[in-house]
Amino acid sequence: LSAISISALSEHIRSTGLENTVSGDGDITVSAVNTVEEAGPGELTFLTNPRYREVAAKSRASAMIVGPKLRSTTDITSIVCDDPYAALCVAIVKIHGHRQHPQWGISPHAWIAETARIGPNANIGPGVSIAERTVIGEGAVVYPGCYIASDVVIGDNVLLYPNVVIYDKCQLGTRVTIHAGSVIGEDGLGYAPVEDKWTKIPQVGTVEIGDDVEIGAACTIDRATVGSTRIGSGTKFSNLVAIGHGTKVGEDCLFVAQVGLAGSVNVGRHVTFAGQSGAVGHIKIGDNAKVGAQAGVTDSIPPGGSVLGAPATPISEARRHMISVRRLPEMKARLRALDAEVQRLRRLIEEKAEPRSERT
Amino acid sequence: LSAISISALSEHIRSTGLENTVSGDGDITVSAVNTVEEAGPGELTFLTNPRYREVAAKSRASAMIVGPKLRSTTDITSIVCDDPYAALCVAIVKIHGHRQHPQWGISPHAWIAETARIGPNANIGPGVSIAERTVIGEGAVVYPGCYIASDVVIGDNVLLYPNVVIYDKCQLGTRVTIHAGSVIGEDGLGYAPVEDKWTKIPQVGTVEIGDDVEIGAACTIDRATVGSTRIGSGTKFSNLVAIGHGTKVGEDCLFVAQVGLAGSVNVGRHVTFAGQSGAVGHIKIGDNAKVGAQAGVTDSIPPGGSVLGAPATPISEARRHMISVRRLPEMKARLRALDAEVQRLRRLIEEKAEPRSERT
Amino acid sequence: LSAISISALSEHIRSTGLENTVSGDGDITVSAVNTVEEAGPGELTFLTNPRYREVAAKSRASAMIVGPKLRSTTDITSIVCDDPYAALCVAIVKIHGHRQHPQWGISPHAWIAETARIGPNANIGPGVSIAERTVIGEGAVVYPGCYIASDVVIGDNVLLYPNVVIYDKCQLGTRVTIHAGSVIGEDGLGYAPVEDKWTKIPQVGTVEIGDDVEIGAACTIDRATVGSTRIGSGTKFSNLVAIGHGTKVGEDCLFVAQVGLAGSVNVGRHVTFAGQSGAVGHIKIGDNAKVGAQAGVTDSIPPGGSVLGAPATPISEARRHMISVRRLPEMKARLRALDAEVQRLRRLIEEKAEPRSERT
Repeated sequence: LSAISISALSEHIRSTGLENTVSGDGDITVSAVNTVEEAGPGELTFLTNPRYREVAAKSRASAMIVGPKLRSTTDITSIVCDDPYAALCVAIVKIHGHRQHPQWGISPHAWIAETARIGPNANIGPGVSIAERTVIGEGAVVYPGCYIASDVVIGDNVLLYPNVVIYDKCQLGTRVTIHAGSVIGEDGLGYAPVEDKWTKIPQVGTVEIGDDVEIGAACTIDRATVGSTRIGSGTKFSNLVAIGHGTKVGEDCLFVAQVGLAGSVNVGRHVTFAGQSGAVGHIKIGDNAKVGAQAGVTDSIPPGGSVLGAPATPISEARRHMISVRRLPEMKARLRALDAEVQRLRRLIEEKAEPRSERT
Repeated sequence: LSAISISALSEHIRSTGLENTVSGDGDITVSAVNTVEEAGPGELTFLTNPRYREVAAKSRASAMIVGPKLRSTTDITSIVCDDPYAALCVAIVKIHGHRQHPQWGISPHAWIAETARIGPNANIGPGVSIAERTVIGEGAVVYPGCYIASDVVIGDNVLLYPNVVIYDKCQLGTRVTIHAGSVIGEDGLGYAPVEDKWTKIPQVGTVEIGDDVEIGAACTIDRATVGSTRIGSGTKFSNLVAIGHGTKVGEDCLFVAQVGLAGSVNVGRHVTFAGQSGAVGHIKIGDNAKVGAQAGVTDSIPPGGSVLGAPATPISEARRHMISVRRLPEMKARLRALDAEVQRLRRLIEEKAEPRSERT
Repeated sequence: LSAISISALSEHIRSTGLENTVSGDGDITVSAVNTVEEAGPGELTFLTNPRYREVAAKSRASAMIVGPKLRSTTDITSIVCDDPYAALCVAIVKIHGHRQHPQWGISPHAWIAETARIGPNANIGPGVSIAERTVIGEGAVVYPGCYIASDVVIGDNVLLYPNVVIYDKCQLGTRVTIHAGSVIGEDGLGYAPVEDKWTKIPQVGTVEIGDDVEIGAACTIDRATVGSTRIGSGTKFSNLVAIGHGTKVGEDCLFVAQVGLAGSVNVGRHVTFAGQSGAVGHIKIGDNAKVGAQAGVTDSIPPGGSVLGAPATPISEARRHMISVRRLPEMKARLRALDAEVQRLRRLIEEKAEPRSERT
């Protein structure tokens, strides 16, 4: 890690189009970025979330990136920027750089079928297998233990971390990144029931992944029964996500860990699925929809819709239901009190009525 | 892919015992099967689910497999069959065939212990490891990166996709298929609490998998602490399924993605667990039971039972609860109205009572 | 497996500090431990959970380990011990021993960077990759197919099962065990939104795992964006657990399968997360807290707190809510009855009122 002065860092951030000012001693140098709790002397920290304000006030960091609203939190040397999060990204890249991959060239310990074509400058690790007729793009990095089946197309500058498996005929666009242990194109759960037994329906479709997609670790994306399962360009998945056969996910979506979509779901663009949420098959999720954590989506969602709960309902409704349930004991008490009052009134009425009948 | 005429395909489907008729031009040829949305000229599509009727009416496919009830949907050439789904399976196999595995023989780049025995015609890829005393059946296919530990028994015609791991002493029946990255026989979460610390209980049991089982990608099936975890013949799992130690799953079950069963669960035959559902340990799930998506099963289920919700309740009850919760705001309004009415009646009664008391 | 007499086993258990007595024929020998349902002649079983009492009474085992309260369940030869579970652990180890790992030494089929340092007596399997400047401790066992990236530190006696992946710069303490297919240190879901697109924030932090940690199969532990994700000493995870970037888990925690924690969660020591539960980011889970199965934690939990439900609430409250919901149909019926009664009273009052007005 190289040390950099706060003035130089400020200048560099400005050169990327982010205006900023230095408050304090610009000659201070930092050589790492760290969180407000953990940063120490010689480290740069940041404050973007007001909930960390108190912790930030006590930070032992040498300098801080902060927005104008929160700058008064601390008197340590600061880079003040209207978009402190963007400035932070620039600072992380400047100070820490990007991950350096080992350089294997084409490892003699990889197994590559004679009919496979490997693009120029590809970096293929030991223990990689690439099967018949598969095409690997220019500058692709394939870490050890990956298996790429036959008739696959891998775009330029794709990055496959260790032990990724791509089944036959799948297609990945350019600059796709897949983290360790993910599986693309396994057979979906396609069986026809025949007298209480399950007869396998060959899954002859594929998976098509667009450009600039990033898939986390240990995800599983089923190939389609026929046709294709699709992940749109720019979409990002966290870990342990399961996508069913024939499902189409649009562009620029964000799926948090452990999301599960059944088959033949149609997801629009820029949709968010929060952690452990899921959706049943054959429904449509509109553009820009947001699905809350652990939500269980059983019906289509219109564009821009926001749902929560299991079964999922629009978020305002879901919150009302939750509040209603929490108030049930209170409601029950009120019902009991009302019951008692009605009994009392009934007795009052009957008491008045009875004397009269005595008079008759 | 080989082109086939609709007449010839109809004939082939008939030869498998499925009666059918051709409506339209039987000389039309198709060379692929695809979905109603995606199929184009030269492709065969199908309509089995009425919800796709409108889309099917606009399909650009050259031909369609359809049941008698939905045949009027379109006027393109059709194969009309009472069981269109079964006919579709036959057509997919005829047109697309089954997956062809690379032929490695016994790769010189596999590591096989001297005491392991490999059956005739086994196909063992590079980077496979097979440890001491393990037996691999006739015709088994083991893709690159699989690890098969010592004292394992793998039946005939088993198919292990890349990077599958089988721990020591586990047993797989014939024709078992396991998709990439799944792990069979890892230690379960067995610890004895000793003064706030966890002391490991060696997990010395095994996993026994029956015949014709298919396990999806990235599943984990714990070995038993003692005795065995069992997966019955004919059972099919999707991806990312977790089975706890000592759990027994019966025959012909179907588990959708991300299902999790704790330890010592006893699951009967032909049970369905839908996506993201789970069950606590030491309970019994009866034959033919159905567990809904995301359900959390906390009690035994009788044979044929169908449950939903968390905690799971019989499905009719669960639906009633969901409806009740959705009507809570309405119920609350009604309670408020009733309260007001009771107040009004009380005042009426008291008004009448008071004048009298004035008279006294 | 070696046969041992019950007297000798009793003596061995006593030698570990666990007092016990033999009831019945101490000369009987056993050569395996098995469950009450499955144990047969020549096998030892155990009864620790009263729910298995009836099954135990019919066990075909030759002998049993049992506590004083349940000893009357059966008249087969028994080792009676105040802590039957601890005695069972001792018996399992005595009879079955610990797993024996294949001895590869340093396999010539491993790829090890020249700058990596491997400790004495390490056991490195074929197909393992160890990258630049990484340090592997004394006696570490690394199974085939593992990938250990650059600048990693692996402590003494660490055990990595097949196909485990450790990303760059992560650190593992001593005696850490990681089961097959788990991934440590992949990038977290860190993106800055820029005009509806996601810009990657390089994840330059690490993962630090303490001593005596055991991680199940197919888990994923994100590296921190900056700083570190931490798993405290003595903590045990089951399978398919997802930990978000920057989350800190304390010592001696127990996480059941499919738990998912978002980023920047702060978990205290000796916390339990039951199966399929999850927590949102930036919250604090106090020491000794217990999170129920499938719970969705959206707020911090105080030390010793016990929560259930989604969103999670204190367990007593959660149970009250569940009971309330189950009683909703009854509550609705009561509301309807009350409504009818109020109508009746209203009519009674009005009837009395009307005749009077007629008199005026």
